[in-house]
Amino acid sequence: MNVLIVFAHPEPRSLNGALKDFAVKRLEAGGHTVQVSDLYAMQWKATLDADDSTGRNASERFYPDRDSKRAFANGLQSADIEREQDKLRWADAVIFQFPLWWFSMPAILKGWFERVYAYGFGYGVGEHSDVRWGDRYGEGTLAGKRAMLVVTTGGWESHYSPRGINGPIEDILFPIQHGLLYYPGFDVLPPFVAYRTRGIDDAQFEAMREALGQRLDNLWTTPPIAYLPQNAGAYEIPTLTLKPELSPGQAGFAIHVAQ
Amino acid sequence: MNVLIVFAHPEPRSLNGALKDFAVKRLEAGGHTVQVSDLYAMQWKATLDADDSTGRNASERFYPDRDSKRAFANGLQSADIEREQDKLRWADAVIFQFPLWWFSMPAILKGWFERVYAYGFGYGVGEHSDVRWGDRYGEGTLAGKRAMLVVTTGGWESHYSPRGINGPIEDILFPIQHGLLYYPGFDVLPPFVAYRTRGIDDAQFEAMREALGQRLDNLWTTPPIAYLPQNAGAYEIPTLTLKPELSPGQAGFAIHVAQ
Repeated sequence: MNVLIVFAHPEPRSLNGALKDFAVKRLEAGGHTVQVSDLYAMQWKATLDADDSTGRNASERFYPDRDSKRAFANGLQSADIEREQDKLRWADAVIFQFPLWWFSMPAILKGWFERVYAYGFGYGVGEHSDVRWGDRYGEGTLAGKRAMLVVTTGGWESHYSPRGINGPIEDILFPIQHGLLYYPGFDVLPPFVAYRTRGIDDAQFEAMREALGQRLDNLWTTPPIAYLPQNAGAYEIPTLTLKPELSPGQAGFAIHVAQ
Repeated sequence: MNVLIVFAHPEPRSLNGALKDFAVKRLEAGGHTVQVSDLYAMQWKATLDADDSTGRNASERFYPDRDSKRAFANGLQSADIEREQDKLRWADAVIFQFPLWWFSMPAILKGWFERVYAYGFGYGVGEHSDVRWGDRYGEGTLAGKRAMLVVTTGGWESHYSPRGINGPIEDILFPIQHGLLYYPGFDVLPPFVAYRTRGIDDAQFEAMREALGQRLDNLWTTPPIAYLPQNAGAYEIPTLTLKPELSPGQAGFAIHVAQ
């Protein structure tokens, strides 16, 4: 299978860098073909702006969505964006690896999503009307592919537990896993999260690495998170609220996972 | 009072640009002094990396936290970071205005937080030990100042309602409001969120503007969100879980707001 690793850490000699190198080897040893988008090494342009397409009149008002749509439809996207879209088309599975900075991904990776997820590719796919709200949340360009987050954090696991002060890790990651991965169609595997990563010793690192290795070995068999698809009857359209008979009386991120 | 607006939209002629210009005028008419950090206009460097400080040995391993600590403590931060820290020190209130892109802030603003919130300024403040987990979540460098998000989204309010497919807006914004604003000490006001912003007419824009104006007029009197401070007895230390007698049996983001 083809695996793309999108990696966002500024230092190759970091724990993150070591885990990424390990992942490449482990996947290749398993017979898979691996590509890495090392965003810092690529000096990825983090900021979405009018320079992301060619052929526009610089004096005209810039619309992030309309300009993206026009560029994607007409082959006018900048080359770095097209290359990443091609990698996504090539991949059977995509791993996004990053340190959790301020309860989200590093800016450079956020900017990767903003620019690579063009209108017509990452969003704005399929019929958009008051009876059908596009091919998204379970359908879309990336349907049939798998995605998994590999996340490191200096904080303790208890700080991210159901009653931990930072909030539960699955809720912190929901806007990413549901909003960025499930949205364009990925099947999203449970995340691999390494806690308390500062100053770990060799034995702890070895255990972390082996735990990641197990997850990579099971990349094709691990059941994805059972998010509810938008267009299969669970939601009212166009309000896009969960139908009252599902998780009755409940609210929040968790209701969007099949019980 | 001194108000800083940190603004992240690539197009000054956008709805966001118009709301920002309106906010400046409304605040100045109220007798306040306003500064704007227009991140796109400033060509803000979004990516945190080893170039954020001077005086380091380029061949040495880069540690985001240790390097930030050293640079902040020794006056070795890059000038753009220092200028933004000075603006934060100057401000009595800070407004963060941005379009909601992929259920979070634009990368350029995320990178502003990553770089400006240096170790010793935004985090790593106060005693860090197994009995005290720093001055954060209600204490810290920015304690006594107010912060408010001004957010626009093309989606409908129902999509962000308690049972909406995107998740409730207050949960989507929790990692920002609690994790980035309350964390270094801000009192966080309820957000101003404008929904369904595509193709609105003049009357709708006028109503939106006036609703924002009311929020700006009440910037000093609106009660902040009642997040529970970390170091006032609500949490076990060092696990940092909410004590069992508070919101017993419950979990998730909402338990961190006083009932």
